[in-house]
Amino acid sequence: MHGIYLVSDARALTARNGKPYLALTLKDNSGQIGAKRWDSSDEDVRVAKPGKFVEIGGQVELYKDVPQIVVNSLAEAPAESVKPEYFEAPPNFDPVALKRELVAMLRGLEDEHYRVVAEAYLNDEAFMERFAIGPAARMMHHPYKFGLLEHVHSVMTLGQSLCDHYAWCNRSLVLLGLFLHDSGKVVELIGENVPGYSVEGELLGHITIGINLLDRKLQELGEQVPHHKGVLLKHIILSHHENAEYGSPKPPMLAEAQIVHAIEALDAKMNAFLRENELPAEQEDATGALRYSKLLKRRIYTPPPK
Amino acid sequence: MHGIYLVSDARALTARNGKPYLALTLKDNSGQIGAKRWDSSDEDVRVAKPGKFVEIGGQVELYKDVPQIVVNSLAEAPAESVKPEYFEAPPNFDPVALKRELVAMLRGLEDEHYRVVAEAYLNDEAFMERFAIGPAARMMHHPYKFGLLEHVHSVMTLGQSLCDHYAWCNRSLVLLGLFLHDSGKVVELIGENVPGYSVEGELLGHITIGINLLDRKLQELGEQVPHHKGVLLKHIILSHHENAEYGSPKPPMLAEAQIVHAIEALDAKMNAFLRENELPAEQEDATGALRYSKLLKRRIYTPPPK
Amino acid sequence: MHGIYLVSDARALTARNGKPYLALTLKDNSGQIGAKRWDSSDEDVRVAKPGKFVEIGGQVELYKDVPQIVVNSLAEAPAESVKPEYFEAPPNFDPVALKRELVAMLRGLEDEHYRVVAEAYLNDEAFMERFAIGPAARMMHHPYKFGLLEHVHSVMTLGQSLCDHYAWCNRSLVLLGLFLHDSGKVVELIGENVPGYSVEGELLGHITIGINLLDRKLQELGEQVPHHKGVLLKHIILSHHENAEYGSPKPPMLAEAQIVHAIEALDAKMNAFLRENELPAEQEDATGALRYSKLLKRRIYTPPPK
Amino acid sequence: MHGIYLVSDARALTARNGKPYLALTLKDNSGQIGAKRWDSSDEDVRVAKPGKFVEIGGQVELYKDVPQIVVNSLAEAPAESVKPEYFEAPPNFDPVALKRELVAMLRGLEDEHYRVVAEAYLNDEAFMERFAIGPAARMMHHPYKFGLLEHVHSVMTLGQSLCDHYAWCNRSLVLLGLFLHDSGKVVELIGENVPGYSVEGELLGHITIGINLLDRKLQELGEQVPHHKGVLLKHIILSHHENAEYGSPKPPMLAEAQIVHAIEALDAKMNAFLRENELPAEQEDATGALRYSKLLKRRIYTPPPK
Amino acid sequence: MHGIYLVSDARALTARNGKPYLALTLKDNSGQIGAKRWDSSDEDVRVAKPGKFVEIGGQVELYKDVPQIVVNSLAEAPAESVKPEYFEAPPNFDPVALKRELVAMLRGLEDEHYRVVAEAYLNDEAFMERFAIGPAARMMHHPYKFGLLEHVHSVMTLGQSLCDHYAWCNRSLVLLGLFLHDSGKVVELIGENVPGYSVEGELLGHITIGINLLDRKLQELGEQVPHHKGVLLKHIILSHHENAEYGSPKPPMLAEAQIVHAIEALDAKMNAFLRENELPAEQEDATGALRYSKLLKRRIYTPPPK
Amino acid sequence: MHGIYLVSDARALTARNGKPYLALTLKDNSGQIGAKRWDSSDEDVRVAKPGKFVEIGGQVELYKDVPQIVVNSLAEAPAESVKPEYFEAPPNFDPVALKRELVAMLRGLEDEHYRVVAEAYLNDEAFMERFAIGPAARMMHHPYKFGLLEHVHSVMTLGQSLCDHYAWCNRSLVLLGLFLHDSGKVVELIGENVPGYSVEGELLGHITIGINLLDRKLQELGEQVPHHKGVLLKHIILSHHENAEYGSPKPPMLAEAQIVHAIEALDAKMNAFLRENELPAEQEDATGALRYSKLLKRRIYTPPPK
Repeated sequence: MHGIYLVSDARALTARNGKPYLALTLKDNSGQIGAKRWDSSDEDVRVAKPGKFVEIGGQVELYKDVPQIVVNSLAEAPAESVKPEYFEAPPNFDPVALKRELVAMLRGLEDEHYRVVAEAYLNDEAFMERFAIGPAARMMHHPYKFGLLEHVHSVMTLGQSLCDHYAWCNRSLVLLGLFLHDSGKVVELIGENVPGYSVEGELLGHITIGINLLDRKLQELGEQVPHHKGVLLKHIILSHHENAEYGSPKPPMLAEAQIVHAIEALDAKMNAFLRENELPAEQEDATGALRYSKLLKRRIYTPPPK
Repeated sequence: MHGIYLVSDARALTARNGKPYLALTLKDNSGQIGAKRWDSSDEDVRVAKPGKFVEIGGQVELYKDVPQIVVNSLAEAPAESVKPEYFEAPPNFDPVALKRELVAMLRGLEDEHYRVVAEAYLNDEAFMERFAIGPAARMMHHPYKFGLLEHVHSVMTLGQSLCDHYAWCNRSLVLLGLFLHDSGKVVELIGENVPGYSVEGELLGHITIGINLLDRKLQELGEQVPHHKGVLLKHIILSHHENAEYGSPKPPMLAEAQIVHAIEALDAKMNAFLRENELPAEQEDATGALRYSKLLKRRIYTPPPK
Repeated sequence: MHGIYLVSDARALTARNGKPYLALTLKDNSGQIGAKRWDSSDEDVRVAKPGKFVEIGGQVELYKDVPQIVVNSLAEAPAESVKPEYFEAPPNFDPVALKRELVAMLRGLEDEHYRVVAEAYLNDEAFMERFAIGPAARMMHHPYKFGLLEHVHSVMTLGQSLCDHYAWCNRSLVLLGLFLHDSGKVVELIGENVPGYSVEGELLGHITIGINLLDRKLQELGEQVPHHKGVLLKHIILSHHENAEYGSPKPPMLAEAQIVHAIEALDAKMNAFLRENELPAEQEDATGALRYSKLLKRRIYTPPPK
Repeated sequence: MHGIYLVSDARALTARNGKPYLALTLKDNSGQIGAKRWDSSDEDVRVAKPGKFVEIGGQVELYKDVPQIVVNSLAEAPAESVKPEYFEAPPNFDPVALKRELVAMLRGLEDEHYRVVAEAYLNDEAFMERFAIGPAARMMHHPYKFGLLEHVHSVMTLGQSLCDHYAWCNRSLVLLGLFLHDSGKVVELIGENVPGYSVEGELLGHITIGINLLDRKLQELGEQVPHHKGVLLKHIILSHHENAEYGSPKPPMLAEAQIVHAIEALDAKMNAFLRENELPAEQEDATGALRYSKLLKRRIYTPPPK
Repeated sequence: MHGIYLVSDARALTARNGKPYLALTLKDNSGQIGAKRWDSSDEDVRVAKPGKFVEIGGQVELYKDVPQIVVNSLAEAPAESVKPEYFEAPPNFDPVALKRELVAMLRGLEDEHYRVVAEAYLNDEAFMERFAIGPAARMMHHPYKFGLLEHVHSVMTLGQSLCDHYAWCNRSLVLLGLFLHDSGKVVELIGENVPGYSVEGELLGHITIGINLLDRKLQELGEQVPHHKGVLLKHIILSHHENAEYGSPKPPMLAEAQIVHAIEALDAKMNAFLRENELPAEQEDATGALRYSKLLKRRIYTPPPK
Repeated sequence: MHGIYLVSDARALTARNGKPYLALTLKDNSGQIGAKRWDSSDEDVRVAKPGKFVEIGGQVELYKDVPQIVVNSLAEAPAESVKPEYFEAPPNFDPVALKRELVAMLRGLEDEHYRVVAEAYLNDEAFMERFAIGPAARMMHHPYKFGLLEHVHSVMTLGQSLCDHYAWCNRSLVLLGLFLHDSGKVVELIGENVPGYSVEGELLGHITIGINLLDRKLQELGEQVPHHKGVLLKHIILSHHENAEYGSPKPPMLAEAQIVHAIEALDAKMNAFLRENELPAEQEDATGALRYSKLLKRRIYTPPPK
């Protein structure tokens, strides 16, 4: 066999005979497969990093009932041979349209100070580029290319409905808070098709990183934004996981922060329910079927066929 | 002084001199005041129960800087002298309109089985009467006459928006689940202007009571409702507090149950934020003001005046 | 090899070559063994469900040092070929005698109202049939045919001693509470020799199911049973796991409920101690031996041989 | 007024005018009353220690609706004036009979080694004297003279029934374990009519103290008792609160330890249910009455009058 | 009476007669006293803020056995009448010397990058002024003028010893981490003699604030400090409470962060042990005395006099 | 192949063919390897216990890519063939020197009573022999020969620095407390090169065992040591894990106990950081590298190469 694959996991191990080998997981549009590169060279290790495309030659063998590739040749795939459409499931939404709508929501904020803050992000090209393409998590929710955009667009859309309902709340604060709540993920997460954490992300977390990014914008904007409005935005980022156990040292202390938490937590779980519905059923009878979701840490239910 | 009051708290105590006395809290539209009835008779105790109206004569004295009534005469207030408008803050919504809208939402459920279940409740006059007038809690949220109706109407309205957004969910199940989630409160809570718990309510809780009420409806409806749909409605009631610590032995195991939990928990907290905003500030500076909310178990924030 | 087995686990999997196969666990009186049915048909999946008896042909192979059967032929076992005594370890008690004693205890309840409730269950043939044969749990305690009967008989016997000791308690309430505490397990659990959970059982749990069953009996009995006595029985079922963490939203609020909890929790653990004593020792020295019990989540001790 | 009282609480405080005063709680058979000794001397402080009897002169005044004594004269009560029957509610059991039965149970242990250990305690006069008179706790359960004896006698009696039931258990180990489980309380607790903690009790706890007492007995007995039997008795003392949160660093690791825990925890709670039943009702309706028990940290129920 | 006091608490309340009054706590060198200003004006409220000095006229009355001032006249104290030495207990250390030593420790850091960061703080006059005078907490530890300086000086001194011992650690990182760990308290806390929290402090906490302050310094310093060194300093601030429950979303992930946590947590507790030792004893016998420390949430021990 | 190995793990298992076999882990200075002894005899099981040296013949095979020995001959290694230096990594410290320094610190205690207690341990040859050679834990920290000595020496050295800093503390109590805190490990742990728990250690834990050892010394010393000083030493041992969750039923109730806890907990973690630094990196980028430490239950960081 011969082909081009995306490396989604690579571990350099030493066999008991003292020789190094590489245990790889390779991905393309059709799924993934394990692979072994025996007697791997330093060059192999350098080439076969998670997130890189490699050109592989070898043969498929069964190992514990599961096919795996024993790799004979391994090289960086020439950029021109990598057809992105072979490696990404096309999202079931249009990222360009989502981004356009999101920008429109931000530019339409009523409160002029919050609008100025939003504009500072929209004008930060490096930020927006990463924001528009990155995943929202490594596993839990929206863990795929454009996932962060999909999640934030979804919660801002919902945010509008909730602010219609709780009309006494500050709509601009809710919407900007929703835009910013996961903004630190542009640094915390790396990769698109194979999301992972950066070392900085592990050491600080997206909440701290996001607040630092915001603080820099506020420093640049100076007196254009009243001090307390900056503090509130930071508080909303800080409290969006609701309690200490989940990483928020402060609970939501204003209604707008509570809304941000409620929407974003629901949207994350809804995404997990949707994706985990594909798992094989563990139990099934006339009442329906159950499958165990590691993401949600519980069994989830599907109704019986009609 | 002389007047008619609603008894909101009454404790029959024995003074050290061996004589009984009554410590009362009296309420009308303008607020509440403490009162003492020295050398109280058995008749006094019978008359002055929480939730009853009494006619009081006495004088106001200061006790630890706080005025209280020393009661000289105490009698049940004649029904004709009790003007309801003196004892209830008029709700800032129209309960008749809310109920009409709620009924319309239930009668409009798409799924015929769930519609049949809804109809069974709508036709249960005793249930609907209590449902339309009772409070939603003793303290935490919507703890006042019509509070349960206001809460359920609010969450069903929101539920419609959320089902528009997560269009892959079963809209009928979400809406009926929201209608039923707190239905056991018609037994758990007693009183309207002075909500309290019934002894049955304390022993069983509204979740268990609500599921029993539903089971009776399902028994009556028999084969009109597929078994698994009844089970799902019970599961939604059972899991609406989300985890064991808060009284739900099972977590939401389908997306519709997750939505019911998210909306109703948010609506309860929003009601608390709104009402607790009236508390006196404990801290105040240029950033804004903080007051401590016992309901939310945290400090809550108000922005500085513009 | 050729033989008749009870299927205790069956998973329909897809091999990497795209073909389906069945991974089975087969049981008879002598123990259990793994089996693989390669290229399994839909018919195979239908036939080889957990709890069913199958007729197997194939050969035994070693896989990772462990023998397993590679299945060549697979069919439903003809009812007449299934000899129950080959598939069940005979219980070390006489289920008929236990049931007779249990019925006698219930018919001897002093309190006439509680006796009426008990009678309603005894007259419910479908209930009693399942009650007398089913297991008490999938793993934790008495997880075998007749296990529920053994457990309930044991705790009612103990309950008599405890009521002799705490003579100020309501003996009828304790004994009936013990009879009912796990009654929802007739729906929660399925299978006898291979206990499992029903989907309804997972969605609602045996506590909620048991309370619903009781509510139906109480509805039928109407005014024959004073309202508060029904509430107390429900409360005892509700609180028998003692705290929220273990699935009881309310703690025992009367001494009789506390006794029910104490006895049934002890009996479950005693059953686990007894069965786990068979595990291989992990540590052993002059002080005795220790083995790790997953059920009890701790090491358990056996004294040194004399 | 003039009289002899038992001091149950005494706090030496300094008034804002800089002068010292004593705030006392005084007890006799009929109940308790607060008292103030203004401008107290060092001698007053020395005399009026909790657990001592004092001769008081003064007058009764009302303070916040509650009578209290303003003390004019204060002196140690002459031993001959203190009539014990005025200061102790007679127990509703015969402590002499209980002790006799307890001794008989211990002398009847089948296992000769455990019988030797029991004998070592029975021969320790100082231990037995304190054991036979002391309370079992400061508040939680059996907090009165002879309370420890009552509790231990009760659990050993129950222990016999449980060992009849679980006949595969080591009866001698269970019974001796029950005798020893709270033995450290002879040092942890001080006082009889007014139980309190010793400073050593607070620093070490009755579990550690009890194990040390046992270790000394075992050191004296030397080879008369096999090593592992001493370890098991220590383990039963150590684990009798079942988990770390309640002060047992090790869970019960043998069935006999599990029984000791189950019985003694139940007996403590039953004692609390019994005593707290006297509290005033907080809620009452046709279903019954509820009162809040601080000891049990929950509401407790009483049925409606027949 | 007539005098100048520091306001340490001020609550604007409304009496039942509808008139406003002020409940004050006033402090000077000799202790504190309560005060009431009846019929308070808006001007009174403005003047009598916690942390301000006021000139008071009135008379002392006893209220519930405790003297309090009924205020007749109330005005801002003229700056020239306020003698600081009447309002501050002189610290038992020399703040000037401590600051000098602390600066020397920072200027002596071996690692040039960390030294540059330290210098950026030393050159920030506003920061250093507040740092050198402010308290370290409102209650828990070092809650007095110069308390932050005392705490940080203490932990840096200890840090040197620990780095001598664990010589494989990065000494510069430990010492700078200790200097920065509580740096956000310059914003979180307000007041010196009467420490309190700013609203921003409550919304964000000193950890988030301190990391923002550091991020600004790092932005200014740009490429003078390698990126990863800035991340590590932020991580040390973030993790210095060790776990989520105490406000650190990330645990110490390098040995140097572990040392910072260990030292600063110990120093805070040692300060509490030292100050709480002054509390009145609750229990006392030949083993010693115990007093209850709210700060440490436990009883603390003092040995018996020799 | 043929050689002498230290058995570090041995499990007697039964294959599905009904025959027994031994699964061994063998160790020498160069690392460890798995081994299988098929058809093992009772004699094999007796010989191949963890901690024993065996002489092995067999051949090396690959099993799941990992070499293992299939054992053909197995016998106890003759004592004279076992060269200790082949089986122990030499410690990177001099145990003789450490012990000498530790003895000197104890003999130099200022407080004569505590010095007498220390002397009682130093004169207990059996204790000191085990103390000087044993490990400090099975896995967590210092889990190797001389590890307990290394740990105790380290914390006593640090203790001197801390007592210099907190000069108001009782230096003798801190140092003796540090010496004794883990003294029960001489019974709790067995083995040196392959540390394990004794059955008594699992049933009682080193805290209880250590307090018993101390109590025996105190019994021997009688009136030479004031009662309260013995109690304090026991309290320090009891509270050195700081809270119930980690096995200390009492928190440190005096400053000296707090210091003992702080130092020993830090030293244990520092040892884990140091050893776990050898683990392979899981994540690595310009900020540095992270590896997952099971001991510390978190990721730990290493800076990027310079």
